[in-house]
Amino acid sequence: MSKQVSAEIITIGDELLIGQVVDTNSAWIGNQLSQIGIQVHQITSVSDEIGHMLASLKSAIERVDIVLITGGLGPTRDDKTKDMLCSFFNVGLEMNVQAYTDVEAYFRKRGREVSELNKKQAEVPMGCMILSNKVGTAPGMWFEQDGKVIVSMPGVPHEMKFLMEQEVLGRLKSHFQTPFILHRTLLTHGIGESVLAELLDDFENDLPAGIQLAYLPSPGLVKLRLTAKGEERQMKTTMEELENRLVSLVKDYLFGYDNQDIQTILGSRLKELGLTLATAESCTGGMIGHLITSVPGSSAWYAGSTITYSYESKTRVLGVPAELIQKHGAVSEEVVLSMVRNVREKLGTDCAVATSGVAGPGGGTAEKPVGTVWVGVALPGRVFAKKLQLGDNRLITIRVASESALHLLRKALE
Amino acid sequence: MSKQVSAEIITIGDELLIGQVVDTNSAWIGNQLSQIGIQVHQITSVSDEIGHMLASLKSAIERVDIVLITGGLGPTRDDKTKDMLCSFFNVGLEMNVQAYTDVEAYFRKRGREVSELNKKQAEVPMGCMILSNKVGTAPGMWFEQDGKVIVSMPGVPHEMKFLMEQEVLGRLKSHFQTPFILHRTLLTHGIGESVLAELLDDFENDLPAGIQLAYLPSPGLVKLRLTAKGEERQMKTTMEELENRLVSLVKDYLFGYDNQDIQTILGSRLKELGLTLATAESCTGGMIGHLITSVPGSSAWYAGSTITYSYESKTRVLGVPAELIQKHGAVSEEVVLSMVRNVREKLGTDCAVATSGVAGPGGGTAEKPVGTVWVGVALPGRVFAKKLQLGDNRLITIRVASESALHLLRKALE
Repeated sequence: MSKQVSAEIITIGDELLIGQVVDTNSAWIGNQLSQIGIQVHQITSVSDEIGHMLASLKSAIERVDIVLITGGLGPTRDDKTKDMLCSFFNVGLEMNVQAYTDVEAYFRKRGREVSELNKKQAEVPMGCMILSNKVGTAPGMWFEQDGKVIVSMPGVPHEMKFLMEQEVLGRLKSHFQTPFILHRTLLTHGIGESVLAELLDDFENDLPAGIQLAYLPSPGLVKLRLTAKGEERQMKTTMEELENRLVSLVKDYLFGYDNQDIQTILGSRLKELGLTLATAESCTGGMIGHLITSVPGSSAWYAGSTITYSYESKTRVLGVPAELIQKHGAVSEEVVLSMVRNVREKLGTDCAVATSGVAGPGGGTAEKPVGTVWVGVALPGRVFAKKLQLGDNRLITIRVASESALHLLRKALE
Repeated sequence: MSKQVSAEIITIGDELLIGQVVDTNSAWIGNQLSQIGIQVHQITSVSDEIGHMLASLKSAIERVDIVLITGGLGPTRDDKTKDMLCSFFNVGLEMNVQAYTDVEAYFRKRGREVSELNKKQAEVPMGCMILSNKVGTAPGMWFEQDGKVIVSMPGVPHEMKFLMEQEVLGRLKSHFQTPFILHRTLLTHGIGESVLAELLDDFENDLPAGIQLAYLPSPGLVKLRLTAKGEERQMKTTMEELENRLVSLVKDYLFGYDNQDIQTILGSRLKELGLTLATAESCTGGMIGHLITSVPGSSAWYAGSTITYSYESKTRVLGVPAELIQKHGAVSEEVVLSMVRNVREKLGTDCAVATSGVAGPGGGTAEKPVGTVWVGVALPGRVFAKKLQLGDNRLITIRVASESALHLLRKALE
């Protein structure tokens, strides 16, 4: 068994600390590293101040084998990562020919001249290896010291991802003999964390050494993550057995694995069955359409949607009888059934889902409080509706109602 | 001038380190703290392991006045924050009557019994003060030691937010004499970071001591943040002058301030003008509708949308002539103009925007590569279209195309 290889991530920028930007880079990097068996020990977000960055890098590199740094590489004055690295390695800056060629090519491709500011992007601390950034102007930098590795990358997510995928991950795999970590995540819908925990009490008690179970709740789903650390062959067998047991325990709620999402899973199922889908959204306002069309290739099974946000549009676009809305209200079983039937017919698809609800903060009544959502579902030979009660957070209600509509169709297709 | 009050945030959970969950809590907390003049010095994400949490808390409390901890308070075994806190303060757990009453009330409201697991949620380290959590089952905890404050909250975002807003922020304000920090952010669209930096070169050179300018680029916009630290009255006057100067320098690109977003700004403008909006989305697939309907009260000015993802639906739902699509392709000026005219008429609104493009990864051609998006805009007395070239990241293209459509309408309404 090889030695555990560990890493820390340092993200730089006052904007992270004052909450102007959410650090999504760290989660992405953590996911990539754990897939190649490198354990992320800590993520630290620090200010643009050189002393603070330097202290974080010094303490991180004491604890782990690899430190990945993002941010602070832009052309402007608040970007000080390179100065910090010069100070850490006790070297000066030098113009790097490869980096300069890359910057020039980047601007030439866009029909622009390299500005004085951007020329400075090609200056790097002496002794580092350049990682070519084809999608931006700041090069990545790779440093080695006493067998440990420090990498500095831009904070712009798609530039960082380009460098990780093209340059960093492969080099880390060959530089370190990475050990064995296995994660397996089961996705459940329709059961709360504490009920799940009671259901899985015996299972947890029986877990062998080296295997952990974690509960990851988020609005509308709970993820169950099994993690194994140890000797590869043995752990693989044990994990397989445990996973099978876990699947049989939660099978009524299980809808997928790992980083899958309901829209991708439903899409695959529809494609297998040769069925097409239309949506009619009121309170979810386009979120269902967005979830579906975030899946590449969804045009193969998704025809489109009507977002009928106003009463009038439900009648004008979808042909929901005005009397029906008058009599039962827009948030009602009758209206959502009319929406789902009409959109399916209008778009000529096999299946459809529709939503109508009170997302809040206004619009609630005693009978239909904020968070009340009717979901309609149509599939070959069956049309039905279900009422959800989703609480008073507008964005959570929109999200959970959207995913629930897709879950209801998925379940009905089983 | 009062002493600088500083804080660190510690977020707990292996799921953050392996990238299964993005830490959005820290950014939100950082934003709230900076608004009351507390400076966030560092954000640290650590594993569920007690030794690691403890080491992080110990070093954080050495550096700052306040440590806010989120996560690890669930009812399951991977939740170990309370054990860690017991170890830090060298105390045991005790059943807290107030916390137990809250848990009971939470379940009673939902017509459920308190399970054994959930009873344990009411056990807290001796000597802490309970912060009532009305939206979940794990109480917040407030500790004081040597004038410093440690707060532990659940990691579920809406529970953490509830506790921060109802319990924590007010107490921090009264416990510490918070100093003066002022942030002002200008939002620009349509100009890149390095061009902006050249435009603002003199402005930056002239900045007085205590004031900093930061560039925060993200897809489709660059934020300019001015930060002042110092004596309140003086800094307020200086900031006002600087802001006016900055506004005049970037006025062609400026569209808003601070945490505003284009959908809220456009919505306010439409309401002022008494105009209504419809949208017709193809490649953006519902994102424009989602952005708009994430604004509470948007039903006052937004009628709805058609998402015509397939060729056929463009004709069936929107009445775009099939010959037009045949002749020019779905991604064309002609089709997007037809979409925007037809949706405006169909939904009877004053304004409309429409999109049609190649989000990728498939579907690109030499003439219309991935990232080509046509946007159509209709307002009283004017209909026009514009072509965007947005690169090869599907989700970024969807997002930037959606926001650009709203920006084009906003500009045209000026």
